[in-house]
Amino acid sequence: MNVEIINIGDELLIGQVINTNASWMAEQLNLSGFSVSQVTVIRDDRGDILASLSGAEMRAGIVLISGGIGPTKDDITKHTLCEFFGSRLVFNEAAYRDVEEIFARRGYAVTELNRQQAELPEHCTGIPNKAGTARGMWFEKDRPGGGKTVFVSMPGVPFEMKGMMTGYIIPKLKELFHTPFIYHKTLLTQGIGESFLAAQIEEWESALPPQIKLAYLPQPGIVRLRLSGTGKEEDIIRAQVDAEVARLEILIAEYLFGHDEETLEEIVGQLLKKKNATLATVESCTGGYIAHLITSIPGSSAYFKGSLVPYANEIKQNILHIPDDLLEKHGAVSREVVTEMALAAQTMFNVDYVVATSGIAGPDGGTPEKPVGTTWIAIATPQEVIAKQYAFGDSRDRNIRRTALQALNMLRKNLKI
Amino acid sequence: MNVEIINIGDELLIGQVINTNASWMAEQLNLSGFSVSQVTVIRDDRGDILASLSGAEMRAGIVLISGGIGPTKDDITKHTLCEFFGSRLVFNEAAYRDVEEIFARRGYAVTELNRQQAELPEHCTGIPNKAGTARGMWFEKDRPGGGKTVFVSMPGVPFEMKGMMTGYIIPKLKELFHTPFIYHKTLLTQGIGESFLAAQIEEWESALPPQIKLAYLPQPGIVRLRLSGTGKEEDIIRAQVDAEVARLEILIAEYLFGHDEETLEEIVGQLLKKKNATLATVESCTGGYIAHLITSIPGSSAYFKGSLVPYANEIKQNILHIPDDLLEKHGAVSREVVTEMALAAQTMFNVDYVVATSGIAGPDGGTPEKPVGTTWIAIATPQEVIAKQYAFGDSRDRNIRRTALQALNMLRKNLKI
Repeated sequence: MNVEIINIGDELLIGQVINTNASWMAEQLNLSGFSVSQVTVIRDDRGDILASLSGAEMRAGIVLISGGIGPTKDDITKHTLCEFFGSRLVFNEAAYRDVEEIFARRGYAVTELNRQQAELPEHCTGIPNKAGTARGMWFEKDRPGGGKTVFVSMPGVPFEMKGMMTGYIIPKLKELFHTPFIYHKTLLTQGIGESFLAAQIEEWESALPPQIKLAYLPQPGIVRLRLSGTGKEEDIIRAQVDAEVARLEILIAEYLFGHDEETLEEIVGQLLKKKNATLATVESCTGGYIAHLITSIPGSSAYFKGSLVPYANEIKQNILHIPDDLLEKHGAVSREVVTEMALAAQTMFNVDYVVATSGIAGPDGGTPEKPVGTTWIAIATPQEVIAKQYAFGDSRDRNIRRTALQALNMLRKNLKI
Repeated sequence: MNVEIINIGDELLIGQVINTNASWMAEQLNLSGFSVSQVTVIRDDRGDILASLSGAEMRAGIVLISGGIGPTKDDITKHTLCEFFGSRLVFNEAAYRDVEEIFARRGYAVTELNRQQAELPEHCTGIPNKAGTARGMWFEKDRPGGGKTVFVSMPGVPFEMKGMMTGYIIPKLKELFHTPFIYHKTLLTQGIGESFLAAQIEEWESALPPQIKLAYLPQPGIVRLRLSGTGKEEDIIRAQVDAEVARLEILIAEYLFGHDEETLEEIVGQLLKKKNATLATVESCTGGYIAHLITSIPGSSAYFKGSLVPYANEIKQNILHIPDDLLEKHGAVSREVVTEMALAAQTMFNVDYVVATSGIAGPDGGTPEKPVGTTWIAIATPQEVIAKQYAFGDSRDRNIRRTALQALNMLRKNLKI
């Protein structure tokens, strides 16, 4: 069943707001077995709205509209929807009680503008909004050739739209259009590029049964592999996907760090908790970014004791007590110094594990022997220190990000032992 | 002159890629005096491309198309463009030399697929691509009622598209459509919400002359105010906008931290360099995020000596030597402790300035006296320590971000003295 998305909002057409609603909606619809054939972004304008609705009606069976409704809008969209469906606005008692309740909770009085939000087109079913005052609207319109086209209008505020999509719209669409069962499993890899990964799993990929599809989803420093199985028999599809996942996991074991929505900082935190172990970071080229990732996880204070960023060499000498001759002989970006940093931090913070980084993030500071992107990462464990060298790229931002992900994955591997 | 944008790409319709091209193009076009009336995202499909082109032609004078061309695509877009314009592909010698040159630079041989990239529709002007092998294509088509519609096709790879837009397409469109002169100036504020800011400048805003428009551009923790003046006389418009900027700067002096594309971490860095002063951070609730922001600026090693993240209280005691009784009596989130942290770090890192943070980022750790969001920030200068308390919100991510921005702005103010 083809879906079209219409996003209404002047802010989307002046470049002020990036249209993340469309990509989120498209992703969720795809995960539920619906395919999105077109996204149209238009102004909050009667003529543009009517033209888009007519166009979408000719092409798609489901039309999802976001934006143009809400307390600060002047209701062009709602009036235009009435016009398109030959309907009229009527006061909806249940919708009004919802508005009143939200306002009471926030300690405000209901204004006339908010009262208008409880007016809905006569021919629609109101969709509850748990996060705001504007109701969603569900319309069904007969198609000339028979059957019905579904139109749904919802607010443009992302968390209001998401609540309606997940809690009401997608479940109802699935029921109405009897979509097949779809089962997804995502494998997360770090430390290998998309094309190398593809080469490594080529044989397995080409032998996949037709009901299981593979998607490569690259992000900076990470490639996600999503398997999607489609069919009628839930148990069979699940078992088939799980079996392929098990095969794939063996092929990419070296790079695989997690599944689905997990993050490296989350996984590392769970492993530390399970081991009842503590962590510190000592970061030169990453400048505190690894500590930031780790402390972005709620409850990280249970295992993370702290971090030192010895950005200047004098801090490496005076606070970490890295010997001068080591720095002079090998330079700060070296196996010797990063190993010493890890050991010194282990003592200083009195922790079981340390992540240490030292590299040339760029754009300046490179030499012929150590060009920009040269990076040393060390992990101190209760038993030993492992240090590895990497040659990343030219971009400062990406070097910091890739170093952090590589370091967290090295730590993860050592925590699994 | 109305512009429509057509983005071609299956990856945009499954939610794999967020359509940042559309918002970037829309912003650049707006800044140059063109208004975007519609964005249409479609699949790389002949029928869909033809339908979108016909639709856009009826509504707009300029149609900008991105995506669907490039070495990994099977040329549906280019063949469909030929069909739409009644043209045919011809081998373009200059385009081929460009491809050869790019490949020689990268040390690769030209493949047959790349040779095909040098084939362009007979009726277009090729647009050079400094960043890749696919040329852009500029078409002009007679309108039934007279005049011409401009169609431009460019690659979907963001930096290739951006290079063509900035270097060729926008300048040529401005020349062709004689857009009026537009002059923009953006003021950056921190520490005040959009509605409070609006209330504070209401009188000034309502007295703005009609040729000068104000836009509020909120981002997490920051509100940007953009003034845009439009007219024929460049010097007059510039002077008028600059005069309004000067008036506005006085009204929002307390919150204003910079202009246009500047960032707080950049400005703070420039001020430190100018003062020949050094900086360290000591971060509890921000967990290294401020150090990360500061070190994201190239050359920050000139003024940034390092950071300590004393996440556990024992680190505050054993490494920073915060007295036990201070921690017991006032708790880690207090004026006394954050002040002591700043002073201790100033000595430890031997720096002129220190930024110190201590707060309850959440979601756990709040108490009735110190709920989640309670945050202390201190700035140590060569003369004194200034500490302030803030009550941020419930979201851990946003508390970390807001604390960091507030702390950097406090530092900036103290560096200006």
